[in-house]
Amino acid sequence: MKHFDSSNLESLPSRYRAHLINSCSGYKSANLIGTSSNEAVDNLAIFSSVMHVGSNPPLLSLLFRPLTVERHTYANIKETGVFTVNHVHEGLVEIAHQTSAKYDSETSEFEKVGLTPIRRADFEAPFVAESRLGVGCTYVNEYEIKENGCVLVIASIQHIFMEEKALLEDGWVDLESIETAAISGQDAYAVPKLIHRLSYAKPDEDVKPLQ
Amino acid sequence: MKHFDSSNLESLPSRYRAHLINSCSGYKSANLIGTSSNEAVDNLAIFSSVMHVGSNPPLLSLLFRPLTVERHTYANIKETGVFTVNHVHEGLVEIAHQTSAKYDSETSEFEKVGLTPIRRADFEAPFVAESRLGVGCTYVNEYEIKENGCVLVIASIQHIFMEEKALLEDGWVDLESIETAAISGQDAYAVPKLIHRLSYAKPDEDVKPLQ
Repeated sequence: MKHFDSSNLESLPSRYRAHLINSCSGYKSANLIGTSSNEAVDNLAIFSSVMHVGSNPPLLSLLFRPLTVERHTYANIKETGVFTVNHVHEGLVEIAHQTSAKYDSETSEFEKVGLTPIRRADFEAPFVAESRLGVGCTYVNEYEIKENGCVLVIASIQHIFMEEKALLEDGWVDLESIETAAISGQDAYAVPKLIHRLSYAKPDEDVKPLQ
Repeated sequence: MKHFDSSNLESLPSRYRAHLINSCSGYKSANLIGTSSNEAVDNLAIFSSVMHVGSNPPLLSLLFRPLTVERHTYANIKETGVFTVNHVHEGLVEIAHQTSAKYDSETSEFEKVGLTPIRRADFEAPFVAESRLGVGCTYVNEYEIKENGCVLVIASIQHIFMEEKALLEDGWVDLESIETAAISGQDAYAVPKLIHRLSYAKPDEDVKPLQ
């Protein structure tokens, strides 16, 4: 097996290390975060750091890199208190990735990449009309990760919209049916194919595929 | 589109809500966390909450649910300061899921599910011999998410082991080549198929697939 130890890692060129370390945690979620500034400029940015935090109350998190440079998404969330999380599906991958270009704060990435901002249920932040699953969130709190200056934003889930076909009768969402993508490393997009759901694990019984 | 607002969400049966909310953030990483207790009992547990935190220094995080019940993985990490992150590939999915059964602290999940603990490079925590990518981590810090009592553990990456074929010349890891799985919701496993890597995005140039 190929082996890197901490001194190998330290001596790697920074781009090489970034590719490597970004891949090691496994697949990541692929979401477009929709926000608006106080000047009503809609902003859209691809994130791989949306994470499930809890279902009661319904919470998710979003990890921001250090705020040493301008972060429009973070600034907008702090200004307005709201944002949307929109699943990237296979057909949106290129334009979703394009949102990571450094546009200025007067420019709406929606316009630049050709996606449609849509307001739903009087929620203030823009959803992506082309996305098949969107979550409306309100800012709750943040934690600075002192080890590297990242900021973990905790948010409360207020609205969920999804194509009807994706919702199963027990509440599980069939992400394959809406072609939700995943991210590996910094720049790769993949579309998962379901193997199966598995039964709740018990110590003296083997797990079984669910139908 | 199907719509849930916050009052719908609040009134859902708890299992239904758990399935729904766990699906909404998108795909999650599928990793087995290997630890040992001070009594030298090896522990192994499936986690979907391993997240990339930074590459310089190399950091990842692990989110634990509230510590109101016994959490062997968390207790072992606090006792020994070390753990391993082992990718779950397609062929390991059932036995990886089986580790989520509530075994007592005297029982090694490695034995129960039929996986092999292996020590590598004098690192104290057990790797999963059958896994194709393993990361050795040391505990650095933790943050309590006050909103629901979850604990985010920050860890430093000390060792990375992977099958040679997975490593590309620029440091990106081809997770498809080692069949790394992803998790959706609480109980579903999927295997992603690469669409493509994309070029670094710039404001006035469309992103392109990389070769």
